[in-house]
Amino acid sequence: MENLYASRVERIRDMMRARGWNAVVICGSDPHGSEYIAPRWHQVAWVSGYDGEGDLVITLDHAGLWTDTRYFIQAARQLPGSGIELHKTRVPEQVLIPEWIAAQAAAQTEEYVIAVDGNCQTAGSVQAITEACKAAGCEVGETVRIVNAPDLLDGLWTDRPGVPATPIMTLGEEITGESRPERIAWLRDVLQEKGCDAMLLTALDEIAWLLNIRASDIPYNPVCISFLLVTLDEVCWYVTKDDFARPDEETADSFDELRREGIRILGYEEVAYGVAGMVEDGEIGRIYADPASLNYNLYTILSENMPDAVSPAEVSLILGPSPIPLRKALKNPVEIAGMREAHLEDGIAMERFLYWIEKSLAFGDIITERDAADKLGSLRAEIPGYKSDSFETISAYGPGAALPHYITPKENAPRLEPHGLYLCDSGGQYIFGTTDITRTVPLGPCNPLEREDYTLVLKGHIALAMAVFPRGTAGCQLDVLARNPLWQSKRNFGHGTGHGVGFFLNVHEGPQDIRQNFNSQPLLPGMVTSDEPGIYREGRHGVRHENLILCTEAGKNDFGNWLRFEPLTLCHFDTSAIVPGLLTDDEREWLNQYNRTVYETLRPRLGEAVATWLEQKTRPI
Amino acid sequence: MENLYASRVERIRDMMRARGWNAVVICGSDPHGSEYIAPRWHQVAWVSGYDGEGDLVITLDHAGLWTDTRYFIQAARQLPGSGIELHKTRVPEQVLIPEWIAAQAAAQTEEYVIAVDGNCQTAGSVQAITEACKAAGCEVGETVRIVNAPDLLDGLWTDRPGVPATPIMTLGEEITGESRPERIAWLRDVLQEKGCDAMLLTALDEIAWLLNIRASDIPYNPVCISFLLVTLDEVCWYVTKDDFARPDEETADSFDELRREGIRILGYEEVAYGVAGMVEDGEIGRIYADPASLNYNLYTILSENMPDAVSPAEVSLILGPSPIPLRKALKNPVEIAGMREAHLEDGIAMERFLYWIEKSLAFGDIITERDAADKLGSLRAEIPGYKSDSFETISAYGPGAALPHYITPKENAPRLEPHGLYLCDSGGQYIFGTTDITRTVPLGPCNPLEREDYTLVLKGHIALAMAVFPRGTAGCQLDVLARNPLWQSKRNFGHGTGHGVGFFLNVHEGPQDIRQNFNSQPLLPGMVTSDEPGIYREGRHGVRHENLILCTEAGKNDFGNWLRFEPLTLCHFDTSAIVPGLLTDDEREWLNQYNRTVYETLRPRLGEAVATWLEQKTRPI
Repeated sequence: MENLYASRVERIRDMMRARGWNAVVICGSDPHGSEYIAPRWHQVAWVSGYDGEGDLVITLDHAGLWTDTRYFIQAARQLPGSGIELHKTRVPEQVLIPEWIAAQAAAQTEEYVIAVDGNCQTAGSVQAITEACKAAGCEVGETVRIVNAPDLLDGLWTDRPGVPATPIMTLGEEITGESRPERIAWLRDVLQEKGCDAMLLTALDEIAWLLNIRASDIPYNPVCISFLLVTLDEVCWYVTKDDFARPDEETADSFDELRREGIRILGYEEVAYGVAGMVEDGEIGRIYADPASLNYNLYTILSENMPDAVSPAEVSLILGPSPIPLRKALKNPVEIAGMREAHLEDGIAMERFLYWIEKSLAFGDIITERDAADKLGSLRAEIPGYKSDSFETISAYGPGAALPHYITPKENAPRLEPHGLYLCDSGGQYIFGTTDITRTVPLGPCNPLEREDYTLVLKGHIALAMAVFPRGTAGCQLDVLARNPLWQSKRNFGHGTGHGVGFFLNVHEGPQDIRQNFNSQPLLPGMVTSDEPGIYREGRHGVRHENLILCTEAGKNDFGNWLRFEPLTLCHFDTSAIVPGLLTDDEREWLNQYNRTVYETLRPRLGEAVATWLEQKTRPI
Repeated sequence: MENLYASRVERIRDMMRARGWNAVVICGSDPHGSEYIAPRWHQVAWVSGYDGEGDLVITLDHAGLWTDTRYFIQAARQLPGSGIELHKTRVPEQVLIPEWIAAQAAAQTEEYVIAVDGNCQTAGSVQAITEACKAAGCEVGETVRIVNAPDLLDGLWTDRPGVPATPIMTLGEEITGESRPERIAWLRDVLQEKGCDAMLLTALDEIAWLLNIRASDIPYNPVCISFLLVTLDEVCWYVTKDDFARPDEETADSFDELRREGIRILGYEEVAYGVAGMVEDGEIGRIYADPASLNYNLYTILSENMPDAVSPAEVSLILGPSPIPLRKALKNPVEIAGMREAHLEDGIAMERFLYWIEKSLAFGDIITERDAADKLGSLRAEIPGYKSDSFETISAYGPGAALPHYITPKENAPRLEPHGLYLCDSGGQYIFGTTDITRTVPLGPCNPLEREDYTLVLKGHIALAMAVFPRGTAGCQLDVLARNPLWQSKRNFGHGTGHGVGFFLNVHEGPQDIRQNFNSQPLLPGMVTSDEPGIYREGRHGVRHENLILCTEAGKNDFGNWLRFEPLTLCHFDTSAIVPGLLTDDEREWLNQYNRTVYETLRPRLGEAVATWLEQKTRPI
């Protein structure tokens, strides 16, 4: 029997021949440039059988999946039989999609047509293909044409899921610290400074933040699939609104609340021609949009409807970075208080979880990685205000933990053994905050390499946590602090050290991060970022120690304005796997102080047994 | 009496009115984009009286000097009376020259003419002005015109010095490790890969490196003012060659040696029309040049002589980064051996110098900062192969050392007192290598703040020196290692941590550096870079500890290819000013090991008295 995915690739090629296309690009995102996507947009998985992150390119004689180091093993397992080849990215010899396609196009003497699913491809990424083709000497628009083919799989993927439409809630000022009108007024000020009279918001977390709304249209991401147009006197929300798709009362109440504030609620599908119509009617002139999340289909429709540009001042679709991510990343005092509350509750769940594992194993209970993940999930679910996990829990024992993006099997998951290291990376979405924590815990005796790795990663974690730095410092300028203890022993990890975290929003958000890549965004007071160095030894073990850290003021002197971090996460680091001789006095002091704070903060909320256990766990070393 | 400089500015304005210019830019560089310049190009100083680094812009109603943090104090001292205002750069609120001029031009309704001294302004910097004007909405070429006015001061500066022409020496393969034909052949291979058939070399250290020649046309920089055209079958060196300017035998021999290898020696002034003529004659087609050192005058002449471009493949002047800096930075084994020899000799001079200071002060001798600088210079001058210092020695006691770029007065220099800290930053040019070293030494009792600063800067120096890092790591990703010990105490320094150093060439060279600015050039084996953190307290003291460090291989494992540093500099760090409790065990061990190595390496070459003294100085702490 022919491989299901190979046959799907062939059906796409039939379509390509019928339409005169030479290449098709299928991007693993959604119409909003999202990192995590709803099942409707699992197009890459539907075509290839591979369900990690990545993008596909199909030509008449080649089919390729582009993905990065995190997914090489998964791709190697899932692709065989499909005829799709793996193209590795984030490796020195990488050839990215734009350059790869450009090389194909440049090798042709006749017309070369590239079809992109303009719904799931951002304007920025199509621009990259265009530029690569030009750089390769192709005449784009002449011999090489890029065709916008939104939802090109629709005719083949007959049981494709619809656009998700989950209940929509609103968040009050007592939770977000800032009302909807305040945020809209701020955005209007920014637009006026830019000389624009409207912004089309396309990134889902930006819309959720601006409107103080949440839904659960994407697993783990409390967002609502929609577009938002903010003009100087109107706000138009393009969202699935019909009673059939969203029949619940909460949504109806939310819509009523927004309408009372003068916000127009319009259909999700109406956005392109709705906005274009407002342009044609002269209601709006210069529209600002971010090419990192504006999809190519919308870009094309809006560009076509714009009056011809004669000088920069009259161009009507202004592309540039959205001002919202930075503002959203600077948590206000109410959000910070909520984040603290979330981490207190989450810490209690984590400590009860770690207590349960230790006691269960001591009693000889059989626990699988899946059992542990479920137990932690149920402890979090008891917390008032819990809405969901913030991502799929990574519950990994021994060799499993050596995969930074391990997926815990639903069935027949490996058992936790009473020795070696168990790694759990998890988090919760609460209406007052988002958490993300990794603890690596010894389940019994550990070998010297496990202990050394455990300790060196902890040194890296502490070095970043203890950082003091002048205002203006970017995350990439601090990243080495977390790596240096590992580098000294010629060990390293292949992922970033830290990512921004939303307030009851996406667990990954920008604009700041702490990684080696040059990102000039300074770390600023109010930003919440993870601190998660690790080490991974294939077939053996993995270690990662992760807290969320809040950037705060640390005073001013002749040398500058100083900032530092404060851990938000409240869960002890196990001291039994540490090689004490590897810690400096400062590191030991930080660790003892942190564990003491965890104990003292959580104790009033813990039962007697867990409190006694935690007191022992947090004794100074 | 009117201020001399104010009257010079007025004479420039008279010329501007006569020629219809609205703004004049006078750049503090030379026709080769050099960092250090010969007296002929001290145009900024001639106009303004300010003799630090910087650029001038003069309009009919404003005159401004643009310079960075290092020179604010000097500019504030030297500018008053000239009517020239200081525009600060490397500060958050900076407005650089291109943006400042663009704002002036944009505010005009009539034609705005900007005259640049195209000889001393690079093609890249004029491009920046053009782009800033376009961004400000100006129509460049229409209402805003940029006029190439090379040597525009010539009519006013009647006693302007000529182009320097010092004796030219050649270096043999036994010194450089690579012959002239080998280097030329390498460059031709690079050009062919780029699809070019010639390169016009304009940076002086690149020419010196490629031709294995040295001169002393610029103080401290053993370069020869010249241009070099390398085609696939010819090498044309445009250099001051007449016997009147260069009457010495060494130069004659050098020219003979080059001519025997088929290199054509042509006049310095012939370059523009010589190269343009070869283009017109069809001898060369696509010429590669680096806009960072190609001056605007040459760029203009060559562009005008190029056939009209119809497609990228037919454009004839190809601008891009020169391939030479990276190749030049990767010192070969012979160069490395020479650098080691230079540091051995230099270390002996330094130790004899430090011994002399200590003993002289103990005997009650009066020593000024100038005496000390002269003494060190004379000790270096005794070394066989010594050609000059590698920059002007900074000999600074107490408050003077608080200025990172202190200039030791020629007359009436401050005395060295038998207490507190003395800082000396100096280096030598030897025909087998270049050195650059800073030692800060206690001349007697030090106060607690001096001792703390001394120790924290040393911790930073050691942290960078001890770094181990995977291949691919750039300097900006390591910089924080040197700053972190200071940042922990909320102290900092306002200069880079490290710069590349040439092989008997400029003491500052690229492409690598170790600083906060994003520079993606990885550190690679064979690169020599400085490690020089510091701290500066105005009116009190300054500390800087500087070694040159060589990047070397450190082995390969599952986690990557590892690199590390090895100190080249051989001169002990004084341990008496250290606060021992601030050092970690690792830092103490590094320091003791380094001091032991210094002693053991230098001892055989030191006299009895200095050897005994050094043995005491390098005892472990």
